[in-house]
Amino acid sequence: MRRPTTTIAASALLAACTGGQTAQPAPRAGFDPAAYRIVDLTHAFDARTLYWPTSPTGFRLDTLAAGTTPGGWYYSANAFSAPEHGGTHLDAPIHFAAGHATADRVALERLVAPAVVIDVSAKAASDADYRLTRQDVLDFEARHGAIRAGTIVLLRTGWSARWPDRRRYLGDDTPNDASKLHFPSFGEDAARLLVGERKVGAIGADVASIDFGQSKDFVVHRVASAADVPGLENLTALDALPPTGATVIALPMKIAGGSGGPLRAIALVPR
Amino acid sequence: MRRPTTTIAASALLAACTGGQTAQPAPRAGFDPAAYRIVDLTHAFDARTLYWPTSPTGFRLDTLAAGTTPGGWYYSANAFSAPEHGGTHLDAPIHFAAGHATADRVALERLVAPAVVIDVSAKAASDADYRLTRQDVLDFEARHGAIRAGTIVLLRTGWSARWPDRRRYLGDDTPNDASKLHFPSFGEDAARLLVGERKVGAIGADVASIDFGQSKDFVVHRVASAADVPGLENLTALDALPPTGATVIALPMKIAGGSGGPLRAIALVPR
Ligand SMILES: [Zn+2]
Ligand SMILES: [Zn+2]
Repeated sequence: MRRPTTTIAASALLAACTGGQTAQPAPRAGFDPAAYRIVDLTHAFDARTLYWPTSPTGFRLDTLAAGTTPGGWYYSANAFSAPEHGGTHLDAPIHFAAGHATADRVALERLVAPAVVIDVSAKAASDADYRLTRQDVLDFEARHGAIRAGTIVLLRTGWSARWPDRRRYLGDDTPNDASKLHFPSFGEDAARLLVGERKVGAIGADVASIDFGQSKDFVVHRVASAADVPGLENLTALDALPPTGATVIALPMKIAGGSGGPLRAIALVPR
Repeated sequence: MRRPTTTIAASALLAACTGGQTAQPAPRAGFDPAAYRIVDLTHAFDARTLYWPTSPTGFRLDTLAAGTTPGGWYYSANAFSAPEHGGTHLDAPIHFAAGHATADRVALERLVAPAVVIDVSAKAASDADYRLTRQDVLDFEARHGAIRAGTIVLLRTGWSARWPDRRRYLGDDTPNDASKLHFPSFGEDAARLLVGERKVGAIGADVASIDFGQSKDFVVHRVASAADVPGLENLTALDALPPTGATVIALPMKIAGGSGGPLRAIALVPR
């Protein structure tokens, strides 16, 4: 099997620069995963996985089998249960917008795309209620270039280092009370710029919500959902990504009719 | 943001063919998802999702909220539960090999890799118990080239067209009885060749198991698990992939200690 390391663009380039005189046919286009470092942006699901304070349950794994079978070989299997919105997960547009895409119907092109990482960890360190501003986005663009349509925009707050300490990660650990949460996230104006003007593919953050902890109106969720932009929540390892140049692949469990669900998100970073 | 369409190899090529005289620095390497068609290899999870006949339960989705909130906006959320081994899912090596990798620890390099698709749909159409042979693999290689280490090997039987008809897909629908199943899959010698000699990254199929329906000893599972090779089961849309040239990205739910679990598998096919 041939395993080409160049894209269509590269082979076209080769043909062009040799005046089209290459002896062999252009290699079949493909991409070589070995050219990339894979970064896992996902927290594992276990009994400590954080859910919203008002969530009725958390993640649970029940052993169905574990041990040697009568045939002599080892066999293990489990069953699991959880609410959709906890751990590293997807918010499908229907989460906050009636009739919009469910988890199984979010366009994969929104979830496999070039990513930018906007770092507000310094600001958030001194203000747990910090919200990304429109000016923060414009400043990022002045340094790194315009954010193109379809981009996955990741907000890095540094909060993933607090996972899974409920009090430090969510700002409060009062059971069944979501009124005293404090953590940073996107702000409304930044969300409107990214979603409405830049037409990004998805937005995500290393905190529990794409709205900040003190939000009462969930305006960022509503702006994103209304425009069919999915949210990626409780991401981790964003510090391992460059501001531009990574490709994010964020694949949710394909729950028919789901409002979201467990997400395995990775990034490919050129070596 | 720059969105380069060439890989490192391509930019090196450009520098080489212009004698290194390019005025600008080589573009930051990255890969452009727009150069690929994305194929979803995943069945959605719903009440009809197929589980093993002896599975205690199936997939279940419970509505937690759906409708207009006191604040005036729409909100929906659900909880879900399922055994790990049903629907499109991962078999982690610990499923059949004590002490081997759990679902959260399967190396991502095994799950993001070039794929080959071996088509036995004609043979399976006339023999529901067909098992891929060593000779089938050698014949594939004679036509398409040697299967390289790290490749994801997908077996196409055509069985996904029968999903989710339990009797036609599994060959039998007797409750709690797995002794009368009939469907094709990998055979032992082919598995030993792929796993032991070719050192493939993962194996997968568009049937319920990497062992055929009549298997009593699950030898393919045991051979793969012992070598840390994960299995991808109940895949679909393999007919949309070329024999070589696609890249598969198969991301499982990150269940700590899991023996497997829901998998969202996609392929990138060069346009
Ligand atoms: Zn959510
Ligand atoms: Zn399985």
